[in-house]
Amino acid sequence: MSYLGVGISPGNVAVYHGGKMKVVDRRLRLTELLLRCSVTALAFLGLILIVTDTQVKKIFTIEKRAKYTNMKSLVFLVVANGIAAVYSLLQSVRCVMGSMKGSVLFSKSLAWAIFSGDQQAMAYMSVAAIAAASESGVIGIRGEEELQWMKVCNMFGKFCNRGAGGVASAMLASLAMVLVSCISAFSLFRLYGATTQRPPNLAVVK
Amino acid sequence: MSYLGVGISPGNVAVYHGGKMKVVDRRLRLTELLLRCSVTALAFLGLILIVTDTQVKKIFTIEKRAKYTNMKSLVFLVVANGIAAVYSLLQSVRCVMGSMKGSVLFSKSLAWAIFSGDQQAMAYMSVAAIAAASESGVIGIRGEEELQWMKVCNMFGKFCNRGAGGVASAMLASLAMVLVSCISAFSLFRLYGATTQRPPNLAVVK
Repeated sequence: MSYLGVGISPGNVAVYHGGKMKVVDRRLRLTELLLRCSVTALAFLGLILIVTDTQVKKIFTIEKRAKYTNMKSLVFLVVANGIAAVYSLLQSVRCVMGSMKGSVLFSKSLAWAIFSGDQQAMAYMSVAAIAAASESGVIGIRGEEELQWMKVCNMFGKFCNRGAGGVASAMLASLAMVLVSCISAFSLFRLYGATTQRPPNLAVVK
Repeated sequence: MSYLGVGISPGNVAVYHGGKMKVVDRRLRLTELLLRCSVTALAFLGLILIVTDTQVKKIFTIEKRAKYTNMKSLVFLVVANGIAAVYSLLQSVRCVMGSMKGSVLFSKSLAWAIFSGDQQAMAYMSVAAIAAASESGVIGIRGEEELQWMKVCNMFGKFCNRGAGGVASAMLASLAMVLVSCISAFSLFRLYGATTQRPPNLAVVK
């Protein structure tokens, strides 16, 4: 009895089982597509918010400009967001093509590639980039007195608020990416499994 | 035909298939145990290296002491390492108990709990803690000139080197945790799958 409805039982059970599973598969594919589109949109929004974030302050005659390139972790976040947005866009196209063809992911090598890309590359990279940017943000807001790293957000409040918006958007994208990586883990590892119940209409021929 | 060798075919094929899979299962369980033990050891080593890391410098008459509590991200890393070490120790005990009983993970709810703990909590938390600590480390080594966050590692070299050792140890623990989370994803999602080939010695009874 196959999960994918193409297995060893062409009888009533398989029809019921396959039908039920096809519905689950369709919902899963739709959820995956929605999540991937969300990642693209949110990562792109985060990127735009950070790249366009700038503030100028005049201290006596000296003009000071805050921009994202002043913080290496924000540059890393912009790069990570860009990669995540493009990757998720391409994966969304693959999902739509797969849905139009009505095909189910059978190939283990493709499933491994998607799982590796989603989880090992994208999800962990996003989490790392956000954590690094958040750390810089916390130092910017609260400072590290002992190390004499001073607060900058009391001086560049607008810059910090907009940057926080960008990080929040990237966080939501990362959350969606983590959920996507669970779906791709499911799509991969179910190919290695088997149902453990004995179908009522199957017998063994020796 | 069951992946776990307890399914619908008690004949020759099932014996061969079950035997082959039992070997895979045993190897997987051993790998999981080794990885979990590595996480415990490396996370604990990282914790010790960071907690005991301290350096005193005398600048004229003023004594300056560098310690991990000066950097919030190192405190976060210590907490994350502590949680990862204890969690992995408990999971190692579960693995050993499972191996002694010779039991295989059948329960979906337990598999979900382990998967959630391994991946969603531990792996992502470790990656985030390391990224935040690394960001602080990079600022400590290179500074952020534009923000007037000065280098501190030229002054507290010994402290920084030992801290880097702690972060490296935590990184290896995190890598092992990521691999463990792949195994737990496999153990969970294979419960939802089925083999797609028709076993040669099975027929349909209508």
